[in-house]
Amino acid sequence: MPSNGSVEPIELKARVANIIFGYDTPAGRAFDLVLIALIVASVLVMMLESIAGLRGAWRGTLSWAEWIFTLIFTAEYITRVYVAPNRWAYIKSFYGLVDLLSILPSYLGLFFGDLNYLLIIRLLRVLRIFRILKLARYLQEANVLVRSMLMARRKILVFFSSVLVLTTVFGSLMYVVEGPHNGFTSIPKSIYWAIVSITTVGYGDITPHTPLGQVLAALVMLTGYSIIAIPTGIFTAELVQQVSRQRMDVQCSNCQKNNHEVDADYCRACGAALPEAIEHK
Amino acid sequence: MPSNGSVEPIELKARVANIIFGYDTPAGRAFDLVLIALIVASVLVMMLESIAGLRGAWRGTLSWAEWIFTLIFTAEYITRVYVAPNRWAYIKSFYGLVDLLSILPSYLGLFFGDLNYLLIIRLLRVLRIFRILKLARYLQEANVLVRSMLMARRKILVFFSSVLVLTTVFGSLMYVVEGPHNGFTSIPKSIYWAIVSITTVGYGDITPHTPLGQVLAALVMLTGYSIIAIPTGIFTAELVQQVSRQRMDVQCSNCQKNNHEVDADYCRACGAALPEAIEHK
Amino acid sequence: MPSNGSVEPIELKARVANIIFGYDTPAGRAFDLVLIALIVASVLVMMLESIAGLRGAWRGTLSWAEWIFTLIFTAEYITRVYVAPNRWAYIKSFYGLVDLLSILPSYLGLFFGDLNYLLIIRLLRVLRIFRILKLARYLQEANVLVRSMLMARRKILVFFSSVLVLTTVFGSLMYVVEGPHNGFTSIPKSIYWAIVSITTVGYGDITPHTPLGQVLAALVMLTGYSIIAIPTGIFTAELVQQVSRQRMDVQCSNCQKNNHEVDADYCRACGAALPEAIEHK
Amino acid sequence: MPSNGSVEPIELKARVANIIFGYDTPAGRAFDLVLIALIVASVLVMMLESIAGLRGAWRGTLSWAEWIFTLIFTAEYITRVYVAPNRWAYIKSFYGLVDLLSILPSYLGLFFGDLNYLLIIRLLRVLRIFRILKLARYLQEANVLVRSMLMARRKILVFFSSVLVLTTVFGSLMYVVEGPHNGFTSIPKSIYWAIVSITTVGYGDITPHTPLGQVLAALVMLTGYSIIAIPTGIFTAELVQQVSRQRMDVQCSNCQKNNHEVDADYCRACGAALPEAIEHK
Repeated sequence: MPSNGSVEPIELKARVANIIFGYDTPAGRAFDLVLIALIVASVLVMMLESIAGLRGAWRGTLSWAEWIFTLIFTAEYITRVYVAPNRWAYIKSFYGLVDLLSILPSYLGLFFGDLNYLLIIRLLRVLRIFRILKLARYLQEANVLVRSMLMARRKILVFFSSVLVLTTVFGSLMYVVEGPHNGFTSIPKSIYWAIVSITTVGYGDITPHTPLGQVLAALVMLTGYSIIAIPTGIFTAELVQQVSRQRMDVQCSNCQKNNHEVDADYCRACGAALPEAIEHK
Repeated sequence: MPSNGSVEPIELKARVANIIFGYDTPAGRAFDLVLIALIVASVLVMMLESIAGLRGAWRGTLSWAEWIFTLIFTAEYITRVYVAPNRWAYIKSFYGLVDLLSILPSYLGLFFGDLNYLLIIRLLRVLRIFRILKLARYLQEANVLVRSMLMARRKILVFFSSVLVLTTVFGSLMYVVEGPHNGFTSIPKSIYWAIVSITTVGYGDITPHTPLGQVLAALVMLTGYSIIAIPTGIFTAELVQQVSRQRMDVQCSNCQKNNHEVDADYCRACGAALPEAIEHK
Repeated sequence: MPSNGSVEPIELKARVANIIFGYDTPAGRAFDLVLIALIVASVLVMMLESIAGLRGAWRGTLSWAEWIFTLIFTAEYITRVYVAPNRWAYIKSFYGLVDLLSILPSYLGLFFGDLNYLLIIRLLRVLRIFRILKLARYLQEANVLVRSMLMARRKILVFFSSVLVLTTVFGSLMYVVEGPHNGFTSIPKSIYWAIVSITTVGYGDITPHTPLGQVLAALVMLTGYSIIAIPTGIFTAELVQQVSRQRMDVQCSNCQKNNHEVDADYCRACGAALPEAIEHK
Repeated sequence: MPSNGSVEPIELKARVANIIFGYDTPAGRAFDLVLIALIVASVLVMMLESIAGLRGAWRGTLSWAEWIFTLIFTAEYITRVYVAPNRWAYIKSFYGLVDLLSILPSYLGLFFGDLNYLLIIRLLRVLRIFRILKLARYLQEANVLVRSMLMARRKILVFFSSVLVLTTVFGSLMYVVEGPHNGFTSIPKSIYWAIVSITTVGYGDITPHTPLGQVLAALVMLTGYSIIAIPTGIFTAELVQQVSRQRMDVQCSNCQKNNHEVDADYCRACGAALPEAIEHK
């Protein structure tokens, strides 16, 4: 409980850093909730702005709201840079880049403001949506999922490469069998169709019309229907293994080896009796 | 077997409560079967009523049937309130609310009866369909499934948040790339498209037409195709763990071996009788 | 190797039964292969017959082929009844009914032959397709899968009931929100839409057009996308459990209890040392 | 480091073979990277060639590029045949055939060059896409996945046969119920619809229009929605088993305890050194 008036800058900086980067003080949690609300509100405003009917009637209000959000996020970014223990590390980090990306497009838009309706303007306007990635900071639990994904990343990469090879082969065959007059106008478009079919999405914008094409399509669909088991199996096996590997958190007093099986009485590395086993006996 | 004629009110109340809330007496089971049949019949009548052709020809009959069901369910609700051991607890419970919701719309409809074809009337008429939730009482086994879901609820919430962030980003990109003239008329509609695609539903009411849009769409579909492994993996690992945890938590008093099978009476490592088996005998 | 000429009827009957019902003699296996080929050919003929262009040009040939198949299957059925050890048991069994169903429609067709293009004729013609169920006899491995399904049948029934309740609720809400002019013409049709969406099939023949309807549809799709984890999890946990329960095939010499764990040294029912454990020591 | 100038042919051959077939020398890895880039570039050229707009404008350039790739792959094939330790084994192997197939169509195209726009030409042109299978050489990890698939291949075959029987029965029923005027013009087409529905692809090119047809379709979709659990369960159980089998198959010579962890040197039950650990030391 320091006095509110004349705090030294260093102490103030540490307190602000604690509020902004920390999760465990009431002030820190309040800051997080306000920030989440602001991010969600800002993304909603952007969505409303994209609806033609609303854009016309509410242009002024939405534009004002947008600039207020931008200024708040700018203040947040500057403060974060200022109080970060290691400034350059923060700026280069994933979250630092997301924080910068969530304000930059609005300022860049000022320079291109007169050339309305161009792709660059539309792109800048939509780049602001990446603001939603600021929420990633709060998806703590996702780390476990992401870690499981990363552990299986080689297998998943191989799976994806195989799917791409499969869709290339199937798409090219369909291009020959069905031909351009049935919607399979080129190999890339036929590969797009094969991806739509093998993932069981099935828009129906391109569909086979010849009997042979329908037989091939049935093959593609059945393939997609059964190989979905592969990523599911890989990920599930990874998770089941992690869960079942809940080892004893006991350290061998002889060789310091940790992480023994639940029913182990002796260290599997040096053969010395484990502390817990000794207690039991 | 009490005499049928002059039972005291308290005893009658207990007997009725046993029939209505219990599952283990013949009368209680008969009551349940009749109630299930009434719920299903009532929902079927409501469905028939919604078909334009039938509504015209059978209006009178269907209306009569509807009121008969409402009166029966009203009698059931009043009886349940009357015999419930703790009245207020029942009224506030999930099933109490469902029971009330299944009769209220019919009575409310009387007050708004002249203002036909308005949203409020259509809403009231359809709210009656929640009557089907009365069936939830009989889905005992679902509790196990619901419990597994609840145990993994934080992981599932994180998964859904991630999917929403992903669809917002992908939807916004498609809004820029495809633009309003290809059906992507606003960001919310583009997000709707992204959800349709990432869940592999694929209605095909909005589809990408530009090559770049089709590449992005392929990415969305492949993402949806593989991340379906995540909820499946989480739920499966949870279930596998629950099943494998069905080991007795009993320690052999001779050799300290733990983790015996559910039906074991003797330690499988040293052959000594297990404590629980001793108690049983 | 009995003499080919004068075998006694009883012996002949046993030999024929061995060929027809058995799988382990060369003659039995040859019989099975011929029968499988005949079933597949017969189903193919039926398919060709349903194609309008072919039906006109090849009517005579296809009709001839159909009658030849019917006569062969009739001979097979009569022989099976004749040589079956327990005739009535065979006739009432699943396979007996399928064998009968695969010939009956052709004969019944003779009586209704003049009333062409009626539903009964079309139904009879297609009932013959159930002939394909004769193949079920040869899908031995399916028994394991079917058994796993049966073991989890209560959980799966509860899952299906929950899905039906969910689709009824969602379908009715969409009927109110979207209304008949957007294709949701009745509650049953809206429930059909909800099933199409929750199973992630997504034909796109009925799609939401109002913003609120699209939000509801997104909810339905995300629900369907994640609850697919439930049947998968149930079935996978059941299979994993079966695989991991591969017990020692050792019988306790004291109490005859079988099916012990792989690392068990003593019978878990009576505490006597198991034979295998004795050998090891 | 042999001298660059006058190497004997045998030594040169071994060195080339090491570069072409090996993965562990810098030169071998560089060769692989160049080859992968060439395969991908060649497939991209083929895709661009199939786009009508590009084909007209860039015909000359694309044709040149195509011939350069063909000549390079021809040189690669000839070298591989020359340096292979067992030439005939290489030629007959999967990769040998793929290498041949990736160059043959271009040469065959010379003979049929004047008969443009015929199926044979289009087929030859697209057969070249199988060139992408040359990439299979580099998907090492896929072997694990393919092996798991192969181990479960009987179960998967049974699953597919059951799906085919199911779709035949459902398709035929729909043919009767919906009839040709609703798009179900023949049994094969109805089976195609059933496959589209049971795999949850759902193009929507053929959809049920009668109430009975929609009930049947709902059944097909719910079936497909839940039986997807079967291949997933089979494959996941197979993978989980493989992972958990990664235990040493070593028995403690002191207490006969089996099933130790892969990195264990001492028995976890009695602390004696394990046989394998003894060998290592």
